[in-house]
Amino acid sequence: MSSSFSSPTVSLTPGEAGDAARSSANVSHFKLDNGLELVVIPDMRTPVVTHMVWYKNGSADDPVGKSGIAHFLEHLMFKGTTNHPQGEFSNLVAELGGQENAFTSYDYTAYFQRIGKEHLKTLMAFEADRMRNLVLTDEVVTPERDVVLEERRMRTDNDPAAQLDEAVQAALFAHHPYGTPIIGWNHEIESLDRNDALHYYDRFYTPENAILIVAGDVEAQEVLALARETYGAIPACAEPPRRNRTKEPPHRAHRLVSLSDEKVEQPSHERVFLVPSYRTAQPGEAEALETLAYMIGGGATSALYETLVVESKLAVGAGAYYLGSAVDDTRLWVYATPAPGVSLERLDAAIEDVLKRFIEQPIDAEHLARAKTRLVADAIYAQDSQASLARWYGEALATGLTIEDVVAWPERMEAVTAADVTAAAKNWLDKRRSVTGFLLPAEDAA
Amino acid sequence: MSSSFSSPTVSLTPGEAGDAARSSANVSHFKLDNGLELVVIPDMRTPVVTHMVWYKNGSADDPVGKSGIAHFLEHLMFKGTTNHPQGEFSNLVAELGGQENAFTSYDYTAYFQRIGKEHLKTLMAFEADRMRNLVLTDEVVTPERDVVLEERRMRTDNDPAAQLDEAVQAALFAHHPYGTPIIGWNHEIESLDRNDALHYYDRFYTPENAILIVAGDVEAQEVLALARETYGAIPACAEPPRRNRTKEPPHRAHRLVSLSDEKVEQPSHERVFLVPSYRTAQPGEAEALETLAYMIGGGATSALYETLVVESKLAVGAGAYYLGSAVDDTRLWVYATPAPGVSLERLDAAIEDVLKRFIEQPIDAEHLARAKTRLVADAIYAQDSQASLARWYGEALATGLTIEDVVAWPERMEAVTAADVTAAAKNWLDKRRSVTGFLLPAEDAA
Repeated sequence: MSSSFSSPTVSLTPGEAGDAARSSANVSHFKLDNGLELVVIPDMRTPVVTHMVWYKNGSADDPVGKSGIAHFLEHLMFKGTTNHPQGEFSNLVAELGGQENAFTSYDYTAYFQRIGKEHLKTLMAFEADRMRNLVLTDEVVTPERDVVLEERRMRTDNDPAAQLDEAVQAALFAHHPYGTPIIGWNHEIESLDRNDALHYYDRFYTPENAILIVAGDVEAQEVLALARETYGAIPACAEPPRRNRTKEPPHRAHRLVSLSDEKVEQPSHERVFLVPSYRTAQPGEAEALETLAYMIGGGATSALYETLVVESKLAVGAGAYYLGSAVDDTRLWVYATPAPGVSLERLDAAIEDVLKRFIEQPIDAEHLARAKTRLVADAIYAQDSQASLARWYGEALATGLTIEDVVAWPERMEAVTAADVTAAAKNWLDKRRSVTGFLLPAEDAA
Repeated sequence: MSSSFSSPTVSLTPGEAGDAARSSANVSHFKLDNGLELVVIPDMRTPVVTHMVWYKNGSADDPVGKSGIAHFLEHLMFKGTTNHPQGEFSNLVAELGGQENAFTSYDYTAYFQRIGKEHLKTLMAFEADRMRNLVLTDEVVTPERDVVLEERRMRTDNDPAAQLDEAVQAALFAHHPYGTPIIGWNHEIESLDRNDALHYYDRFYTPENAILIVAGDVEAQEVLALARETYGAIPACAEPPRRNRTKEPPHRAHRLVSLSDEKVEQPSHERVFLVPSYRTAQPGEAEALETLAYMIGGGATSALYETLVVESKLAVGAGAYYLGSAVDDTRLWVYATPAPGVSLERLDAAIEDVLKRFIEQPIDAEHLARAKTRLVADAIYAQDSQASLARWYGEALATGLTIEDVVAWPERMEAVTAADVTAAAKNWLDKRRSVTGFLLPAEDAA
């Protein structure tokens, strides 16, 4: 069994171009009496189903002083329940030829399996069981906490790049919990105990807080019937927990975070801007930011790559992306790896010049058209994976969007104009709202 | 009436050199049955008393999402009670020829009056009254919130240096509430209402959470009797509220915060190190930090001033201080104002060189002796003010120290060695645990 916490990656921007209407019209959306949402996505290509449960709580919902509890619970969900001892569920999935995984992010925690469609009901019964029947004794909780601490040690505390990333995000978010790492601060993980886990589990692992996504060769009504039999048997618990998150104050000062470490062999540069997410943006604004990020640094034809890697050769790599899928204001990342002998200061100035072009100069129509086509096409290609398809809908719903938002996304991307991209650059590529990160070899901190 | 929120200034380091023992032996310390602490400090020079009540809660105890509530309560404490309408207390103090003030800091909130000693009992009765009988209606609370918002607008939002200070502290404290301004974030002040005020008042304004300091031409037993009559009539409320503060994760990356604004005419530089406080330090360590800060930047004979202002003329001003009086890990500040034409980068490098000297080179014995003498002498001079005397004890007790700590301070300062100062520099002038702030004219952000 692999229980992993996933770092956020490129925002998932679903959509379908040509035959969008037909396919999306087939997505069904239900709500069980106990409040659980169900989304069924037809995908008839193979006799396989993807089954995901998304809980609308992630690390940004960790109680103050209890950072890491969302991720810790993800680990604990692989322990036994009152009905099934530890390992039974995972072993069964493996025996039936299936796959499973789980991930915790800032805004959600999700559990995933893929299996032959005839086993769907079995999965649903097991997943519904662990929604409420987890056994959380000290014998289970305490050793797993050590596993998480070791995970943190390996992934973060031994990795200068991960340490810098933590410091950059902490500097970007002065007050909002996105500034706290998903895995939690070490000293707070150390303090998590059985009571914390129980309290958290009771509060968040409820049908009202869950979204069930089933994609595959299944009929919606059939899945609904199965869901009622399994998840539907869970009594309603309470109103869905509120997301009481602190908000950022206005940002007026640029922050440069420099980390130098003897383990660093390759310096690197990043610039992170605080920007609206698909959920917090004005209409069309997130799509413009998505396009802007792609034009700045999406692939080898992007402005950053062409200017820094191909032309000036100041960098050996460069890119940008927009983490649009977030409940609250989020991040647009720009990054580059300097060529040998190029200082990060010099690289920074060159990056600044590229960003300024988007603010000051007209957007190239051809580049814009190419970017939009590519973004929409990427989304279509990604749907080839049943898991990606399921993930798009789950992520959208778990971050406060609707199925309609997902369905209309390609259309809204097509509508992005050059003026929209320029406005997004002017409004949001504001250095005062950004943090720059310098990763440096030892004895070389800026 | 002047209700002011006081920015933290140089740490108050009480103590007496020569005849310390005699004077300090006369300080009396009592605890009433309801939990209220009483400290009586004899000062027979004039027939005047200083009366202070210290509550062991400051802005760092503001509930999450309710920043500014401690300071807001300080304002509201000047409104009426069930026994006395608004203005009666303040008017009386003025009519009797007295003075009053109040201040909110990170770790405490305090109320102060100075008056002829014959009026002490009157003050005590009024101050005890408002500890529990404040009238907090919407009519009182809502307009005062606008007053606080206006205060914030004037003091912070219109002042680039104050904005930079907020951003520097937010960057220094990634997780601990010292990163939140005392006055609160604007959007959270806006949300404070009567319920918040009532809940906060009930929780923190209790005899168990209060320290009464009386300095002046008074006998301890007489003050005790008066305190029993007035404060002693308040029923015990509960255990003192716990200070549930989040702790900082390890700091591994230097942060440079740059703010540029058209209102800036004079650029400035600051460097803030995260260091232990008198309460969190190992024995002797805070005294060494106090000495180190003074040697770096205390006055015109300090290393920073001599090097940057007198010798190299890179700066027109420079200094350093240690904010030792704090419940949790605190700040050592180094700052400088560049001479015309000197960039902050150049100044930063020069400051860095001065700091490195303390780490790498032996401490000059004469400079050390001079610093210690001066620090202890300053403390003695400051005792000439009855209010300062009262404030030392109040601040010490409110931040978790004891009367013995206050009394023994000059002795512990005398014991600081060159090796202690070097160790403090090596341990705590760690750039990774620091934030640098650049205040710049418009269009000149680093």
